[in-house]
Amino acid sequence: MAIVDLAMIRAAHDRIRAHINRTPVLTSSRLDTAAGGSLFFKCENFQKVGAFKARGATNAVFALDHATAKRGVATHSSGNHAAALSRAAKLRGIPAHIVMPNNTIKTKVRAVEGYGGQIVFCEPNQASREETCARVIAETGATLIHPFENAEVMAGQGTATVELLEDVDVDLVLSPVSGGGLLCGTAVAAKSLRPQIKVIAVEPANADDAFQSFRAGKIVRVEPDTIADGLRANVGAPNLEIMREFVDDVVTVSEESIVAAMREIWQTMKIIVEPSGAVPYAAIIERKIDIVGQRVGLILSGGNVDLDALPWK
Amino acid sequence: MAIVDLAMIRAAHDRIRAHINRTPVLTSSRLDTAAGGSLFFKCENFQKVGAFKARGATNAVFALDHATAKRGVATHSSGNHAAALSRAAKLRGIPAHIVMPNNTIKTKVRAVEGYGGQIVFCEPNQASREETCARVIAETGATLIHPFENAEVMAGQGTATVELLEDVDVDLVLSPVSGGGLLCGTAVAAKSLRPQIKVIAVEPANADDAFQSFRAGKIVRVEPDTIADGLRANVGAPNLEIMREFVDDVVTVSEESIVAAMREIWQTMKIIVEPSGAVPYAAIIERKIDIVGQRVGLILSGGNVDLDALPWK
Repeated sequence: MAIVDLAMIRAAHDRIRAHINRTPVLTSSRLDTAAGGSLFFKCENFQKVGAFKARGATNAVFALDHATAKRGVATHSSGNHAAALSRAAKLRGIPAHIVMPNNTIKTKVRAVEGYGGQIVFCEPNQASREETCARVIAETGATLIHPFENAEVMAGQGTATVELLEDVDVDLVLSPVSGGGLLCGTAVAAKSLRPQIKVIAVEPANADDAFQSFRAGKIVRVEPDTIADGLRANVGAPNLEIMREFVDDVVTVSEESIVAAMREIWQTMKIIVEPSGAVPYAAIIERKIDIVGQRVGLILSGGNVDLDALPWK
Repeated sequence: MAIVDLAMIRAAHDRIRAHINRTPVLTSSRLDTAAGGSLFFKCENFQKVGAFKARGATNAVFALDHATAKRGVATHSSGNHAAALSRAAKLRGIPAHIVMPNNTIKTKVRAVEGYGGQIVFCEPNQASREETCARVIAETGATLIHPFENAEVMAGQGTATVELLEDVDVDLVLSPVSGGGLLCGTAVAAKSLRPQIKVIAVEPANADDAFQSFRAGKIVRVEPDTIADGLRANVGAPNLEIMREFVDDVVTVSEESIVAAMREIWQTMKIIVEPSGAVPYAAIIERKIDIVGQRVGLILSGGNVDLDALPWK
C-alpha cells in the first residue's frame, strides 16, 4: 500500500484550492505538427510562486495540527519548494526556516525573502543541506517539510494531474523527476483516475539517479551536473517505492535538448518555462518516447529563471 | 461618420473567428498590488503569428471579393502584419507580396517566409516602403492591404476588444499606438460597446508622432528611434481622424520604462511579450495615468522577440 493515494490527493485539493491557481492547459498546433501527436501543457509556470511546488507545500502546511503548526516549518530546497513553503507558512501565520545552497540563483533567494522565509545558507550538496536542516529543527522545534519525501507534499503535487485530467483526456503523462515528489503525485493521480494512462518520468542524463535507481530497483546516488536547477536532488527512497508501483518508465535527455526544448517553448508558445520544466518536452524533441498519434500531457513544472543568465547567451 | 463602426467589427469577428485564437485575459495579483488597480492583460502574444495583426489581416483578406482576391494582396510592414497577411493569403489560397525594411529582425523575416509570403526588401524608411510597394502592386495587380489605414484591418483589430469586454468589465483600456490600426479598432469597439470606458493610447516618447499629431489636430511626422520595433510607423491620416473622435488621450513612455515593463511582465507573469506589447504597462510603471482603484484593460499586442537580442543583455 503506497503512502499516497487518490483520497489524499482529493483531500489535498480541497485543502489548497483557495490558495493556488487553477493553471491552464495550453496547446500549440505548431508543436503538435512537429511532434506528430497532440501535446497538452499543464502550465505550472503560472502557479503561485511560479512552480507546482506551491501545491505540495501548501497542503503540507495546512495539514498540520494547530499545536505543531505554530512551532513553524523548515526545509532544505533548491529554491521553488523554499519559496512555496515560505508562502504557505505566511498564509498560515507561522515561521518558515529555509536551508538553501549558497549557489542558489538570485531570483529564487529573493522570492523566499519576499515571502518572509528565514534563510540559512549551506554548502551545495545534499549532506550539508540535511545536516544544516537538522540543526535548525533542533534549535526551533519546527516541523521538517521535506521537499519530496513527505506524503502530504506528494499528495499536493498530484493535484496538478487531477486538474489536467479534468480538462483533457490523455494517453500518456510526462513528468520531470528530481526527488520524485511531483512524479509520485502525478503517477498516483493518473493511474488511480485512469489506469490505462502511461506515466513516464523524464530526467537529465547529467542527473540520472532516478533512471539508474528505477532500473536497479534500489537507490543509486549521482552527483548532478545539469542546467535544470530544479532537478539536482537525488530521488527519495519512499519516492522510488511509489515509482516502482505507478511509473511505467524513466527516460533521460541531454543538456542540449533541455536548452533547445526551453527555447522552442518560449519562441513558439510565448511562455516562460525554466530548464527543469522543459525537460518533458526535451524527451519529445529527442524522440525518446513514441507519441505519434497520441494525446500527451506534459507537466510544465515551473517558470522561475534568471533573465540575466539565459542558457543561449 | 467614422470609416469603422461596431457593425463592421462584429462582421469581422464572424469572418475571422475560425482562423484566429480566442486569446485569454490574464491577471497578476502581484502586478495589481504594485499598480494599485486591477489589470487585465488581453494576451495577443498568444494570437496566431504571435500578434493581434492576425485579426486585421485575416479580415481584410477574407473581405475581398473572389475576382479581386485571386490577383493577390501586397503590403509594407515592419513584420507582424507581414506574417499575418502571408498567413491569411495562404488560408485563402492567394499570393501575398511583402515589402519589408532590410533591417527587420530575423525572427519576423523567417515568419513571413514560413507562411509563404513573397518578400521584397526596401530601405528602412516610410517613403521607400511605400514606393516599393506601389511598384509591386503595379507589376502584379495585387490589392494593397495597408497595415493600419485599411478600414477592414482596423475592424479586425477591434475584435480583440470585443473579446476583452465579453470577458471582463473595465473602466479604462490602454492600447499601444503606431500607425493606429489597433488603437482605432480598440477605441471604436470600446466606445461603441460601453461609452463610459476611457481609451488611452500609449506611445514611445522616441516615436511620439501620434502624441504630437493628436495634440496638433494634424499629422506631425517623426523619425522613430525606439526599441519597440512594432511602433515605428507614423500614424495614418484616417487613423488620426478616428482617434480625435474616439480616443481620450495619448501618453508617452521612455525607452527605459518599456524595457522595465517588458522584463517585469516576463518575470512575474511568465509570458513573453515584445517591447511594443509592453508599452501600455510602461505607462502604468511611469504613473502616467491615474489607475488607482480602477479596472484597466491592456492590449498585450504581441510576443515576437529575438531571443538572441534581448534588451537587458
